Amino acid sequence: MNRLFHVPLSPYSRKVRLVLAEKKIEVELVEERYWEQDPDFMRRNPAGKVPVLRMDGRSMSESQAICEYVEETHPTPALMPGTAAERYETRRLIFWFDDKFHAEVTSKLLFERVNKKVMGQGYPDSKNVKFGAQKIKYHLDYMGWLLDQRRWLAGDVMTLADFTAAAHLSCLDYISDVDWNRNANVKDWYAKIKSRPAFRGLLADQVPGFPPPAHYADLDF
Amino acid sequence: MNRLFHVPLSPYSRKVRLVLAEKKIEVELVEERYWEQDPDFMRRNPAGKVPVLRMDGRSMSESQAICEYVEETHPTPALMPGTAAERYETRRLIFWFDDKFHAEVTSKLLFERVNKKVMGQGYPDSKNVKFGAQKIKYHLDYMGWLLDQRRWLAGDVMTLADFTAAAHLSCLDYISDVDWNRNANVKDWYAKIKSRPAFRGLLADQVPGFPPPAHYADLDF
Repeated sequence: MNRLFHVPLSPYSRKVRLVLAEKKIEVELVEERYWEQDPDFMRRNPAGKVPVLRMDGRSMSESQAICEYVEETHPTPALMPGTAAERYETRRLIFWFDDKFHAEVTSKLLFERVNKKVMGQGYPDSKNVKFGAQKIKYHLDYMGWLLDQRRWLAGDVMTLADFTAAAHLSCLDYISDVDWNRNANVKDWYAKIKSRPAFRGLLADQVPGFPPPAHYADLDF
Repeated sequence: MNRLFHVPLSPYSRKVRLVLAEKKIEVELVEERYWEQDPDFMRRNPAGKVPVLRMDGRSMSESQAICEYVEETHPTPALMPGTAAERYETRRLIFWFDDKFHAEVTSKLLFERVNKKVMGQGYPDSKNVKFGAQKIKYHLDYMGWLLDQRRWLAGDVMTLADFTAAAHLSCLDYISDVDWNRNANVKDWYAKIKSRPAFRGLLADQVPGFPPPAHYADLDF
């Protein structure tokens, strides 16, 4: 049986969960309190992070390396588009969200509001929260601008870039940090991706001490 | 003519320079003071970072998205290995260096010693420098352990993982922050990669105000 070591509100874990579910690859989810640096877990992944996927006799880390592996070994349905130029644009946006969006938004809001409490690191730093809340507007506008020209973020087909963006936004939506009224394109795009069967597992997540808002799991939000 | 907007001591720019040189793709190098956020440059790359590669009528950003594109469109000589499992390991290590090594080492040493001065942001923070100098030991040991079992970092053929690691280490070597005596495997590996023709451009770099040490360009270091 495949196993995914994860935490429910890790956008990187969610990206891998979405890819596995979309490709109908069954996996047992194991919550891993990675910040406690359990020696067994550190052996599985010297980088000490989630997600770690146990599959094909191998413990794999780094979400993007995992997703490319799963895409190569289970190509249907395809989550990478057909041409080198389209794949470039897909990967550019994956790094945009996993790197820039994470640094400017996800880490500023989610880490401050949730991870700090769960890890026993004290209260949110309001300067960071304010910074993240400001920056997410710019990112939603950028997504809206892309979606003005394309059906999906990287082009006319749904790709791993959409799942990456949705993984980050779904974590932030769990803590009510996404203003869906800001941009109609972005709301339509999220409604499409949220209604996919692959999304169901994420919408059922419950983090103790952090009940999700009512609209979180509502397909008509 | 292809153009690469870069800075000499950016490990991400160096990774792209190495890939282009290894594949004998000619490129004009243009230094870009990206931190000044010139509007023309921001138009080319909304993320506001280097490298940006102008090629095939397209402005491309995100070094790893660029490298995968170049690998797909110019597959010879190959910098990605043949099987999905080997490509997974190659990408895992690329992210190890571009993400973890950069956060723990490159940003702590290079940013403090060089970028801060160049960008007019004051003096190095000795706490960060000390942290980076401590962490690099652990990374060199990890590389040595990998190279005990393999000819190159990701397996028995040279890959983009080697160029990524060498891009980071070469920047640090420029400021004398690599102890080549710590691990014989790592020194042998760097000697092999440093002597490749693709490395010549990097070894000729000169940053005003930061003359490189004598051993930096010496193949017998």
